[in-house]
Amino acid sequence: MTRSRFGEVELIARLAGIFGAAPPEVAIGIADDCAALNLGGPDYWLWTMDSLVEGVHFDLAYMSLAQLGRKSLAVNLSDLAAMGGVARYALLSLGWPPDRDLSGALEFGEGLAACARDFGVAVIGGDTVSSPAGLAITLTVLGMVPKSEMLRRSGARAGDLIYVTGPLGEAAAGLEILRRGLQLDPTLSEPLIRAHLTPQPQVAAGRLLAREGLATACIDLSDGIATDLMHICRLSGVGAKLSAEALPVPSGVKIVARMVDHNPLELALQGGEDYQLLFTCSPAQAALLPTVFARAGLRLPNRIGEVVEGTDVLLLSPGNEKIISGGGYDHFRLDPQTSKN
Amino acid sequence: MTRSRFGEVELIARLAGIFGAAPPEVAIGIADDCAALNLGGPDYWLWTMDSLVEGVHFDLAYMSLAQLGRKSLAVNLSDLAAMGGVARYALLSLGWPPDRDLSGALEFGEGLAACARDFGVAVIGGDTVSSPAGLAITLTVLGMVPKSEMLRRSGARAGDLIYVTGPLGEAAAGLEILRRGLQLDPTLSEPLIRAHLTPQPQVAAGRLLAREGLATACIDLSDGIATDLMHICRLSGVGAKLSAEALPVPSGVKIVARMVDHNPLELALQGGEDYQLLFTCSPAQAALLPTVFARAGLRLPNRIGEVVEGTDVLLLSPGNEKIISGGGYDHFRLDPQTSKN
Repeated sequence: MTRSRFGEVELIARLAGIFGAAPPEVAIGIADDCAALNLGGPDYWLWTMDSLVEGVHFDLAYMSLAQLGRKSLAVNLSDLAAMGGVARYALLSLGWPPDRDLSGALEFGEGLAACARDFGVAVIGGDTVSSPAGLAITLTVLGMVPKSEMLRRSGARAGDLIYVTGPLGEAAAGLEILRRGLQLDPTLSEPLIRAHLTPQPQVAAGRLLAREGLATACIDLSDGIATDLMHICRLSGVGAKLSAEALPVPSGVKIVARMVDHNPLELALQGGEDYQLLFTCSPAQAALLPTVFARAGLRLPNRIGEVVEGTDVLLLSPGNEKIISGGGYDHFRLDPQTSKN
Repeated sequence: MTRSRFGEVELIARLAGIFGAAPPEVAIGIADDCAALNLGGPDYWLWTMDSLVEGVHFDLAYMSLAQLGRKSLAVNLSDLAAMGGVARYALLSLGWPPDRDLSGALEFGEGLAACARDFGVAVIGGDTVSSPAGLAITLTVLGMVPKSEMLRRSGARAGDLIYVTGPLGEAAAGLEILRRGLQLDPTLSEPLIRAHLTPQPQVAAGRLLAREGLATACIDLSDGIATDLMHICRLSGVGAKLSAEALPVPSGVKIVARMVDHNPLELALQGGEDYQLLFTCSPAQAALLPTVFARAGLRLPNRIGEVVEGTDVLLLSPGNEKIISGGGYDHFRLDPQTSKN
């Protein structure tokens, strides 16, 4: 097996170099959750695309086709939420194995349509192809955000505080439960399984942060904090310190971690697929967060660390300090600890 | 092996039903080459998406990664050309096997970038995922066409004449040469191989037809005339008669067809991947085609038949008349005669 000499982040950087500079109406090109286009009018058009591959991103042994349909749109909506935007239109590319009954594709469509209805998205076209090795789903979504409100990955400054909109590690723990058939109290396991099967894109939180101008940088947690916070740090030219004790890790996640002989922090930091928003906020603005989120009827974000000078992401626990930059999921690294295969 | 009880056309129709009606600013939704959006301004925004799957749409044994990169954009540009539009922006989803050297992804990117430069397209984002079973490429492209000029599949009327912008069956014959290692005179084989490896989207012809208002309906030939003309007929509520003798089938295609024991017409009608434009034109406008195309420096289109009342596509040859509707490539039918697997 040939190991690649470079990983996903470097691949994207090199491809960006090959594709060259974008024209001036492209406010954000390669290197954020979505591309942002200035096509005239008060809004940026946000444009994103996400693929889910059978055997890598999902297993139909424990996920229904309707759940997959819903999730395939939800992960795109999460990208838009990270920029403070809402989705309007979607195209679907459905790669379907020719030996599987096409009626399953309708089930998939029903799940996708339900999510689209929930978030006011019109599915208006796409492509259908044969994919003999398994389902391959790609969705592309167009949405919008007022130009003055758009959240980026690049605005974090030393001294800012770091927040996350919800619990960490739930989806990763849910996947372990499903994959290994772990038995635990349903009141503990159900939220974890639900987090994996039907992630909730944090569109309302993203809109709130954008409208109120509360975030200096924002990203959605798809690959795990270790990787995703590093994206913010790299693009903002800063480092970060996280407090291990402040990470919102539910007791169910801790129990699952013990059952599978993992450090619970590993699941929380590297598990990925949380689809919560990770954002940075100036200390002055941070004081407003509880009131603003409570008034909007949204769960209060958890403060988990602060932005510092430098380039590394550090995890602080009592009497210990550890560099965790880059320890999240990389689609092209074959590390058994972090591989989702 | 479970055979599906319905095919690609019905799948798309059923999914369209599930996704429901699009909002009024969606000028064209599911059922054309691209979706068309009225986002204000004098143009429609055209939005398309196409996927290429290793082992189905391409074989790296005889196609370089750079050629694949070029083709993956070209097939999307062809969709826009069919509506008279030009492309502006693209996103790439690159599914890459984790055991293959990532430097190949840069080669792919170089080919894609070269095609993007040729046609003035900015590649501004996308997604990279692990795809263990083989490369899976999806591109989505945004472009535009003046609202008053947009070509559709639905405008053909009985009495219109049917044209195609270039030769038929070349790509299918080129694929046979590559796949079977056929030996023939390079002056015959090279254009066929080139048609398969580096298809030329007919953007200039599409713009000309749109600007001059010459086409009543238009589609690009991706699945073969038998299928693609049927799309025009179905959406326009008409039938069609094709003249077998008028089809532009190069002698190289005929020779390859004989070598592989196929009817040359089969390659021309069902081979697919021609990426020529198939359009209909009123008899009055048809008289202008030679002058208009010659002045633009473009190859004159071939007249191959006419639109008639009814619902069938008929192929007329001396003393014979045959219904060919629906005999093209269907991604989900497992017919060895037409399967591209």
